[in-house]
Amino acid sequence: MKIVIIGGVAGGATAAARIRRLDEHAEITVFERSGYVSYANCGLPYYIGDVITDPEKLTLQTPENFFKRFRINMKIHHEVISIHPDRKTVTVKNLENDEIFEENYDKLILSPGAKPTQPKLQGVGIDKLFTLRTVEDTFRIKEYINKNHPKSAVLAGGGFIGLELAENLRELGMEVTIVQRPKQLMNPFDSDMASMIHSEMRKHGIKLVLGYTVEGFKEKDNGVEILLKDNPSLHADMVVLAIGVTPDTALAKEAGLELGIKGSIIVNDRMETSVPDIYAAGDAVQVKHYVTGDDALISLAGPANKQGRIIADNICGGDSRYLGSQGSSVIKVFDMTAATTGINETNAKRAGLHVDTVILSPMSHAGYYPGGKVVTMKVIFEKETYRLLGAQIIGYEGVDKRIDVLATAIHAGLKATQLKDLDLAYAPPYSSAKDPVNMAGFMIDNIAAGTLKQWHLEDVDTIPEDKSVVLLDVRTVAEFSRGHIDGFKNIPVDELRERINEIEKGKPVYLICQSGLRSYIASRILEGNGYETYNFSGGFRFYDAVVNDRALIERAHACGMDY
Amino acid sequence: MKIVIIGGVAGGATAAARIRRLDEHAEITVFERSGYVSYANCGLPYYIGDVITDPEKLTLQTPENFFKRFRINMKIHHEVISIHPDRKTVTVKNLENDEIFEENYDKLILSPGAKPTQPKLQGVGIDKLFTLRTVEDTFRIKEYINKNHPKSAVLAGGGFIGLELAENLRELGMEVTIVQRPKQLMNPFDSDMASMIHSEMRKHGIKLVLGYTVEGFKEKDNGVEILLKDNPSLHADMVVLAIGVTPDTALAKEAGLELGIKGSIIVNDRMETSVPDIYAAGDAVQVKHYVTGDDALISLAGPANKQGRIIADNICGGDSRYLGSQGSSVIKVFDMTAATTGINETNAKRAGLHVDTVILSPMSHAGYYPGGKVVTMKVIFEKETYRLLGAQIIGYEGVDKRIDVLATAIHAGLKATQLKDLDLAYAPPYSSAKDPVNMAGFMIDNIAAGTLKQWHLEDVDTIPEDKSVVLLDVRTVAEFSRGHIDGFKNIPVDELRERINEIEKGKPVYLICQSGLRSYIASRILEGNGYETYNFSGGFRFYDAVVNDRALIERAHACGMDY
Repeated sequence: MKIVIIGGVAGGATAAARIRRLDEHAEITVFERSGYVSYANCGLPYYIGDVITDPEKLTLQTPENFFKRFRINMKIHHEVISIHPDRKTVTVKNLENDEIFEENYDKLILSPGAKPTQPKLQGVGIDKLFTLRTVEDTFRIKEYINKNHPKSAVLAGGGFIGLELAENLRELGMEVTIVQRPKQLMNPFDSDMASMIHSEMRKHGIKLVLGYTVEGFKEKDNGVEILLKDNPSLHADMVVLAIGVTPDTALAKEAGLELGIKGSIIVNDRMETSVPDIYAAGDAVQVKHYVTGDDALISLAGPANKQGRIIADNICGGDSRYLGSQGSSVIKVFDMTAATTGINETNAKRAGLHVDTVILSPMSHAGYYPGGKVVTMKVIFEKETYRLLGAQIIGYEGVDKRIDVLATAIHAGLKATQLKDLDLAYAPPYSSAKDPVNMAGFMIDNIAAGTLKQWHLEDVDTIPEDKSVVLLDVRTVAEFSRGHIDGFKNIPVDELRERINEIEKGKPVYLICQSGLRSYIASRILEGNGYETYNFSGGFRFYDAVVNDRALIERAHACGMDY
Repeated sequence: MKIVIIGGVAGGATAAARIRRLDEHAEITVFERSGYVSYANCGLPYYIGDVITDPEKLTLQTPENFFKRFRINMKIHHEVISIHPDRKTVTVKNLENDEIFEENYDKLILSPGAKPTQPKLQGVGIDKLFTLRTVEDTFRIKEYINKNHPKSAVLAGGGFIGLELAENLRELGMEVTIVQRPKQLMNPFDSDMASMIHSEMRKHGIKLVLGYTVEGFKEKDNGVEILLKDNPSLHADMVVLAIGVTPDTALAKEAGLELGIKGSIIVNDRMETSVPDIYAAGDAVQVKHYVTGDDALISLAGPANKQGRIIADNICGGDSRYLGSQGSSVIKVFDMTAATTGINETNAKRAGLHVDTVILSPMSHAGYYPGGKVVTMKVIFEKETYRLLGAQIIGYEGVDKRIDVLATAIHAGLKATQLKDLDLAYAPPYSSAKDPVNMAGFMIDNIAAGTLKQWHLEDVDTIPEDKSVVLLDVRTVAEFSRGHIDGFKNIPVDELRERINEIEKGKPVYLICQSGLRSYIASRILEGNGYETYNFSGGFRFYDAVVNDRALIERAHACGMDY
């Protein structure tokens, strides 16, 4: 059996190695356009920032190693220029000598990946304007920095690559600005949660230019002018375009494969394309979203590797199925970690789901043991059914742990209320006897039982100011005096029973405290005394962070770019 | 409604606070024998070691706070001396003035906990011999250390408390010895995995006296002589007895409650005891093991807190059920973390289950990103059904995360083969594109598909030495020369295809490499060439660690206590 694989990273490399493990006698050839195979894709930004200092660490697997261990022919600098499904061959160009040849296959695997989206804008293509996809791109940026010592960079795009690059360039001492059309970074996160990311970026001196549209680039003053729609332009010594990726599927299209979103390759759950004996994996394929069941593009390394393994199984006579992508991801943002799984509230609502959320801010580990840090968690679930839809967690410790627990719970189909039952490992340095994930479950269980009714950030503007409701802040007097929402009356929770007469009967009471815990206790006291209550989700801590962040963004717009 | 609660820590305190949240008008009284309520039980060893320096951190919740916020009467220094289910009262002794009174209840909650097991040995009760359960015990030990500056301590018992105390006393500069009857520390772990714990303890200068029976204690030379059966005695300036805990259920027994294992209180899944209107929670109750369904005693804070919450629900008209305890736990062992969930291999076999295991040693995060450390993972599952039974993980980073993911998978009833499908969050600082948990799933999937057949540590002694099998080590020549199992031939995996003629046909080949990965690849090469192969589970790294540890333990026995 002869296997040809297009693309020697992630899905392609995984498929190749596993096919060999399942079939010692298959002939396996991989064509890789770049000069590197199976490289550390997700490590590239960290090489630029000198976190990874040895270039060999990025490219640990060489074609020689692959041949020695797996008898896989890894042909680097070989570009497949067309696929001929009718005669089961591919036409290949050796980029080193421009030789063109045809290679036949019994099974063909496409793992072409996705390329940085190149907007059709003035100046795209000029020098000092980079994209980051391959090892070569990485070395190019690194070399430019080493040679020209740029003092400033603008990153167009605030997703994973944009943020990781921002951090790494900043650590090199550069002035870094991120420009982004939406008014938030990291769109897998809801905009309220993204506020926490913004503030960490600003704390580390990153300028955020959010809600602005890049219209083009011009070389100017030995650097680049970044033209913004309806606004003064920015200037930087270098620019990296990181506005997203597009499936690299020109070949697949030309070969007549059925394509989906953004030209991605349509595959079934065996990772078979619409054309017999052609499989595809990785960032180039359209997947089912595990939570919504909708078609989706999810460019992450985990799914790509799993898909490669599944293809190998199926080519070698097995029957493995890809169950869909859940979008679990995590990013280091300076000292902070931000992670997500499933879908966010925005997308859930867009999908027409009837959603509710809880927002909590527990300690990463027992408060009495040194070093614990507050974590901000948002769990999204479907009303009535309590189906778990997604979660977002941001903090300084234990974030990746809780997102993986929630990812597992979602994968296993646990209900949001069942999070309370999880038997998680506790010792003071690692967690609390009531783990943050359990706490989320307790809150959702309280909602299900009717003992917790919430109001949310989006309700703040619609609360009537006509005294038909009572607005009550149950923090201490000192906390209240440091900042509160206008119109709220302050009665500390521990004085509530004595002062309950100060609260007008017969009106709904909207409660807030710092994190949501004391206001919950206050709501229970009031409900026990005949009041109808609503507890602010996330507490004043969350409100304050989001509102301040939004004010900063709007001020920039109002004052003409005083970012 | 009048609620009386016996015991103001963990389960009792949780139940009290939640009952108030569910019922503003209930009368709630808690009788606590000690001087503290809701204290940081699991933090006590860290106060002794000056990790937690402020005693108020241990006792953050005071009776005054509880009253202010919850209107709960926390009566400290009050011991309930008998329960009268017939007339629904308890007799209480005020330990401050010896006053005795009777208190009636509508619902009674028992949360008496478990007390350190006191063996009936000569010298138990002498000065300088401590146990650790309460805040008072903690202050007593701390005061003794501050006053007498003991230079050495013997800890009788190698469980959670023993190990945490060992670390904390060692950090104070003391010579610390752990004596333990079994030949391993931490019996939730299989003895092979416990070896990793032993070596970390030894690395930090803890003396391990394993497989010895303490026969008694004597005051001697201003310290304590620890008498060992058939062996010379030990001597130390102080001793802590931490050989385990026993449910503190004399009251429950006297009141006629049905008792189970070690005198624990039998409850149903609503946490109701055999006597109407009496509930029980925490270390004193017998639970169902979530994995085996067997009756079990599991003394951990997480279950106690969950049970307290369930009792509150049920008392206040709800219907909450405790699903059983899974034994998820984690412990810091100096720089290392050791964690477990479900049942171990030893107990699974003892329960008559037909078990298999995988042992792997992946990196905690991507190898190319700095700071990753090897993690040792053992996953236990049922043969044929692939039911997940348990897991043990030991390492320096990411251990608590993976155990919680596995705990969640077990709770949700995922099969061991399904671990390969989990969509976990990856970025280089946190994980690998194939997370260690996915890797375990891949291995188990390979076992299920028949592409991975294993041999285990316990098979080493039974491998025939009569040349009826081939023993093959596929590491590099350099690795092989640094240490190998006698009788193994060395052919590095990358030379295997060329040298395949050196391997006799028709004989089963027992393979080993360093971690199990290269030997798996070698096994696939050989199987593809018509050989029958078995891959050593855990690799030479694991073999070497376990065998060396066992040799150290046996040498002590052979040489008369040269620990």
